[in-house]
Amino acid sequence: MKALVYHGPHRKEWEDVPDPVIHGPADAIVRMEATTITGTDLHILKGDAPSVPVGRILGHEGVGVVTEVGPECRKVRVGDVVIISSITKCMGCDSCLSGLTSYCETLGGIGWVFGHLIDGTQAEYVRVPFAENGLVPLPRGVTVEQGTVLSDMLPTGYEIGVLYGGVGEGDEVAVIGAGPAGLASIMTAGALGASRIIAVDRNDYRLERALKCGATDTVRVADGVDLGAAVRALSRDGLGVDVAVETVGLPRTYAEALDTIRPGGRVANAGVHGKPAVFPPDRDWIANLTVMTGLDSEAEEPDLLERIADREIDPAKLVTHRFPFARILDAYEVLGNADARRAIRVIVGSGK
Amino acid sequence: MKALVYHGPHRKEWEDVPDPVIHGPADAIVRMEATTITGTDLHILKGDAPSVPVGRILGHEGVGVVTEVGPECRKVRVGDVVIISSITKCMGCDSCLSGLTSYCETLGGIGWVFGHLIDGTQAEYVRVPFAENGLVPLPRGVTVEQGTVLSDMLPTGYEIGVLYGGVGEGDEVAVIGAGPAGLASIMTAGALGASRIIAVDRNDYRLERALKCGATDTVRVADGVDLGAAVRALSRDGLGVDVAVETVGLPRTYAEALDTIRPGGRVANAGVHGKPAVFPPDRDWIANLTVMTGLDSEAEEPDLLERIADREIDPAKLVTHRFPFARILDAYEVLGNADARRAIRVIVGSGK
Repeated sequence: MKALVYHGPHRKEWEDVPDPVIHGPADAIVRMEATTITGTDLHILKGDAPSVPVGRILGHEGVGVVTEVGPECRKVRVGDVVIISSITKCMGCDSCLSGLTSYCETLGGIGWVFGHLIDGTQAEYVRVPFAENGLVPLPRGVTVEQGTVLSDMLPTGYEIGVLYGGVGEGDEVAVIGAGPAGLASIMTAGALGASRIIAVDRNDYRLERALKCGATDTVRVADGVDLGAAVRALSRDGLGVDVAVETVGLPRTYAEALDTIRPGGRVANAGVHGKPAVFPPDRDWIANLTVMTGLDSEAEEPDLLERIADREIDPAKLVTHRFPFARILDAYEVLGNADARRAIRVIVGSGK
Repeated sequence: MKALVYHGPHRKEWEDVPDPVIHGPADAIVRMEATTITGTDLHILKGDAPSVPVGRILGHEGVGVVTEVGPECRKVRVGDVVIISSITKCMGCDSCLSGLTSYCETLGGIGWVFGHLIDGTQAEYVRVPFAENGLVPLPRGVTVEQGTVLSDMLPTGYEIGVLYGGVGEGDEVAVIGAGPAGLASIMTAGALGASRIIAVDRNDYRLERALKCGATDTVRVADGVDLGAAVRALSRDGLGVDVAVETVGLPRTYAEALDTIRPGGRVANAGVHGKPAVFPPDRDWIANLTVMTGLDSEAEEPDLLERIADREIDPAKLVTHRFPFARILDAYEVLGNADARRAIRVIVGSGK
């Protein structure tokens, strides 16, 4: 088969590799219909993830058709169209049983294995361990494109941004960054009844897309703009929003998230950070605030699928670019070029 | 009457001042039976709290007898023995109604006013605004000494340390610092069913007291000790505790609290911080952790009083020193001298 193989920092190829085979009795093989390229893949290609070895097939999202199953698979059958959860989980260890599937101990304490510790989804076929825990049947009424966003991005925005943030009916929410995680948070915060959703970004195109995903207000980041003050001014009494969702992953944006919330407010961190940030307890020890971080468990996929089927949310709004597998290197190019801010979710598929 | 008056950094006197009088219709006057001296008073005397003006009577905890009430007081009557909540609250503004009484808007957004924005409790008499919201009758079976600890310290450890930390049945808890807030957290974490409570301090005397308050294990901080590793090694599987309560207020102890918790764990910050601290989202963005800060609302006083009456907890275990009012300067001396680590709660009273 063909697959996108990592050959060390800044080197990748779409090349011939052996087809995957069943290793364990709970494995399944899936023929990929569609996958995505994400910021994580770009980080790996920059050399930011030394745990990814040379020779690894990248990718951790996608939808496909089951072509083979191990003897322990009962619910998953050949021919099923399935969403591949980016988090693999045994569902037998203490971490999985306590709901922290992203820390599955059987997998060495890390549930994110596709395109990382094992071969990933940017390929014509992929082996899925613990297939019955990681494959979610694509229901009627949900498209393949919508399904790919369910693999990881939509659950991250929903679970880590919106549910960890405790967003409820009538809450005012600021979402820092209108990229994929930001738009996923905006969309799902609206579904939970947030009364005001303020999208914050530097880029007009992304802010427009935020409005299409349900943002009620936008704040454009620019030099000299006091972002915290601008967001607080939009809140019901000027004291700040109930919840800030941080989706960028910089010390600056983390500080901005803290600046936007009211006393008793919550910051949910969905951004992937490369540097430490300052938490100012000298200012905020008194502020009754809550900060949360995390990797999603993807336990919320059934809830999200129902909301998609009910047309409450449409994750296809995150998809901006589509390429066939043969042009996957062009798809990577789009995410790396000057116009990258216009690329939210880039789908690569079999074209079926 | 006599009162302890702040005369600017490092200057205080026990001196004659005018008796307090009723200002507003919801005020009451209380004759103090017992008050305390706390770390906050020492901070003020160091000049760390510029919002405290020269001439202010210090103190924000205590128990006394109501001697006079304004016309709007119905429940509170002359002769009642009452605990004075350190947080004053109107119970009519949006903050109070949402449970954030420590941000009472009528009081200018800060519920801590005694010994700060108005005269405090280190006096023979004190004026209590919004008396019906701030005075809690001392029930039979609860002593005056126990009551003084209910004014602020026990609710802080319970609400901000233990309840914000989400301590539940069977949880393992690390308490960083075995001073008053730490011991209050230890005591109440035990009452909620924590299965392991690890007290962390530099001082053997405080660690012994922690064991008397319900700690199951102690870790003595010393140069070269990796505190996070020592606490994690005591946890059920070596991954860390469910909850860490930070009660010291230093960048180092804040970092230590983060180092002790397991994935999915929670840090409740009850310490008063003077400097920013590093929150390492580059390490912890993935760790599904929660950090909380806050000032207590004191809404939990009835619950705590019941637990005292039921002998589940005994806050008198925090009291190490007792002085009559006439020797209040000696009491301050105890907290400032070389043996201060042996002073947990210092009570100053009428001696009745």
